[in-house]
Amino acid sequence: MIDAEIIAIGSELLSAQRVDTNSLYLADQLNALGIEVRRKLVVGDDRTLLTVAVQQALHNQGSGNAFTKAAGLLILTGGLGPTEDDVTRDAVAAALGRPLLFHQEISDEIEERFRRRSRKMAEINKRQAYVIEGAEVLPNNAGTAPGLWVDAEGTIVILLPGPPKEMRPMFEAECLPRLKRRMPEVVIRTRFYRVTGMTESDLDALISPVYKPYANPVTTILASAGDIQIHLRARCATEAETEGLLAEVGSPIEELLGPRLYSRNGDPLEAVIGGMLCGEQATLCVAESCTGGMVAGRITSVPGSSEYFLGGFLAYSDAIKTSLLGVDAQLIAQQTAVSAEVACAMADGALARTGASYAISITGEAGPESATGAPVGTIYVGIAAQGQATEATRFVMPGDRDRVRGFATNAALDMLRQRLLGSAR
Amino acid sequence: MIDAEIIAIGSELLSAQRVDTNSLYLADQLNALGIEVRRKLVVGDDRTLLTVAVQQALHNQGSGNAFTKAAGLLILTGGLGPTEDDVTRDAVAAALGRPLLFHQEISDEIEERFRRRSRKMAEINKRQAYVIEGAEVLPNNAGTAPGLWVDAEGTIVILLPGPPKEMRPMFEAECLPRLKRRMPEVVIRTRFYRVTGMTESDLDALISPVYKPYANPVTTILASAGDIQIHLRARCATEAETEGLLAEVGSPIEELLGPRLYSRNGDPLEAVIGGMLCGEQATLCVAESCTGGMVAGRITSVPGSSEYFLGGFLAYSDAIKTSLLGVDAQLIAQQTAVSAEVACAMADGALARTGASYAISITGEAGPESATGAPVGTIYVGIAAQGQATEATRFVMPGDRDRVRGFATNAALDMLRQRLLGSAR
Repeated sequence: MIDAEIIAIGSELLSAQRVDTNSLYLADQLNALGIEVRRKLVVGDDRTLLTVAVQQALHNQGSGNAFTKAAGLLILTGGLGPTEDDVTRDAVAAALGRPLLFHQEISDEIEERFRRRSRKMAEINKRQAYVIEGAEVLPNNAGTAPGLWVDAEGTIVILLPGPPKEMRPMFEAECLPRLKRRMPEVVIRTRFYRVTGMTESDLDALISPVYKPYANPVTTILASAGDIQIHLRARCATEAETEGLLAEVGSPIEELLGPRLYSRNGDPLEAVIGGMLCGEQATLCVAESCTGGMVAGRITSVPGSSEYFLGGFLAYSDAIKTSLLGVDAQLIAQQTAVSAEVACAMADGALARTGASYAISITGEAGPESATGAPVGTIYVGIAAQGQATEATRFVMPGDRDRVRGFATNAALDMLRQRLLGSAR
Repeated sequence: MIDAEIIAIGSELLSAQRVDTNSLYLADQLNALGIEVRRKLVVGDDRTLLTVAVQQALHNQGSGNAFTKAAGLLILTGGLGPTEDDVTRDAVAAALGRPLLFHQEISDEIEERFRRRSRKMAEINKRQAYVIEGAEVLPNNAGTAPGLWVDAEGTIVILLPGPPKEMRPMFEAECLPRLKRRMPEVVIRTRFYRVTGMTESDLDALISPVYKPYANPVTTILASAGDIQIHLRARCATEAETEGLLAEVGSPIEELLGPRLYSRNGDPLEAVIGGMLCGEQATLCVAESCTGGMVAGRITSVPGSSEYFLGGFLAYSDAIKTSLLGVDAQLIAQQTAVSAEVACAMADGALARTGASYAISITGEAGPESATGAPVGTIYVGIAAQGQATEATRFVMPGDRDRVRGFATNAALDMLRQRLLGSAR
């Protein structure tokens, strides 16, 4: 099995604000080929530090008990631009002990690229026409910096540009086919489950007895604000074996999760709901208070959501709850705006005013302070449907304002899903 | 000047889904002390790979032209838990060539921690009571794993737990004071500018002649969906010198940016608008079509936004634009829903129905397909205000659905800011 190291080059990637997203993309692509990433490094635009880092990846390291072999694959992203700051070509050539050779045809192509945009190539762009001796040139259709592919004593070294819109198409067009040819014939398949309505630790306690005994498939669990993803990645010699293994581990997990499992293909909750509404030829509206449009924002993030989403109300102030949604001002005075009664009245009001099949309402205390006396984190979600009784459910969410609003948004979408599941039975 | 390396330990950090956020936090903290991060590494839960990585950071590397000195500071996060997977203590001890010694008092503390929660300490938790010889123990108030601080031949080695809610308080309580004592007396200050309404490359062309000649302050530019941050970080011996240097570079930048500069302290657009509305004792409502609640979501993310935000309308379908906002159905038929006329009518309708001082409306084609014939990315933003003429502005945004909606949200917030700037004059 080949293992890989990834080095991202760029001083900006060492700041507190920037994340190296290229390595996430590459990890995904490599894992799908059955290649595991064993180290990820970020280095600034420093020729010496980078040369040393490449040497470390190319040679066996350590001694005695702590001995590691060179990586089978080393991918570098960034530092291929035309300026003095762009040191990747130089550093890799130095680490390999190979010269850089000027390629006139690459220089001509870059010059032509500038000419097509009615611009003149600057002299410094010629730096991009230097190629490590023995390397294959990987054409760049989205920019001036060509990539390089070097077979170096047991390690494949790939140099890719830093901008994702150049790096990704180059990797897919040039590197994937070459890597596939070198990989043993295996079939890799992944199941993407999504679950809501439980904590990560409860979920893990429930399903770890199923997946823990298996190193293959590899199980990854990712949680964020009330939404959990479970990835099962299996690799076997044949399609049938791989699918069989996924079923062996996946089916008991599906059974344990029951209706909390809302997606088997990684689709988010808003897309799952969209599919269910389309299937029913039903329409939806919302009435949001403390989430202030976040539920509708999620729903309308799905392309084609205009098929089923009509719109709704942002009833942030009490006066607006009354004037736009017809919530009785006395009800608000008696029950406070954060109550099951007001949540139901908001949903009813939205349903009546839009004529939608379903209405979701949300009212709550997102914090940092409580206006109604209800504890911060208290949320009521109401669901109204034509010809059905309106119901509201109380949730108490942990965390700060952002987290409470995120949880509440997810809880509201999931309540609608549960209702739609019920109506489909 | 001390430079630092950060190693994050955990196989999950090598997946396509997880980002090492600890290193972002640490880079921020270290930069504020005047310590630059020169390398960031992620390693899986592998004793050998980690031992080698620590050796590489502790010793001078390379030879001849490619020679690097050991880092002055090495911070490791993660891998301090009680299981076999947690290899950081072992690996650092091996790399340093020092033994691990059992500390009964740490074991007793962990046991006591379990007892307070009416649980029994598992035998494996005793692994967390081993300390590298000569290390100082850093107490963990939020979990069982103590941190370690080792002074090792010119490099300070710090071992911190992986969970941010344990790592951050430990760093702030235990490491910051120790590091401050060792740093030369310098004063570091940062200006956080935020700019909207221009591209990153236009911005850089405009201001790079000002900041490029200066290595101090360090200038960082970060762009996302129509919003750009500029950070200037200066370090000098005295407060007066640092502030003087920030003014020397910052003031010409502020002048060049003019009204496109909306924040001098890093506040986001929605907070700046909130402050302006409070200052005017004015209120706001929205009428959103293609952004489906994203503008209101941003506005209500600000604590205390109920002071000025009343609510509004999610007018996604044409019928709802007519029934809820009173937009003339004939106008939509003639001009299409994606038109300046409809944007104005939406803003007027929202203003009349809520009684707010200001209304923002947004209608557009977010894609992937166009329903009206207008090119995908076409957005109209309308602004209505009590006693002022209603205006709409057309934008054409690049990118996919998510990007168009993000740009449109930002453009709408900025149009309101410009209007509020005008009314404040």
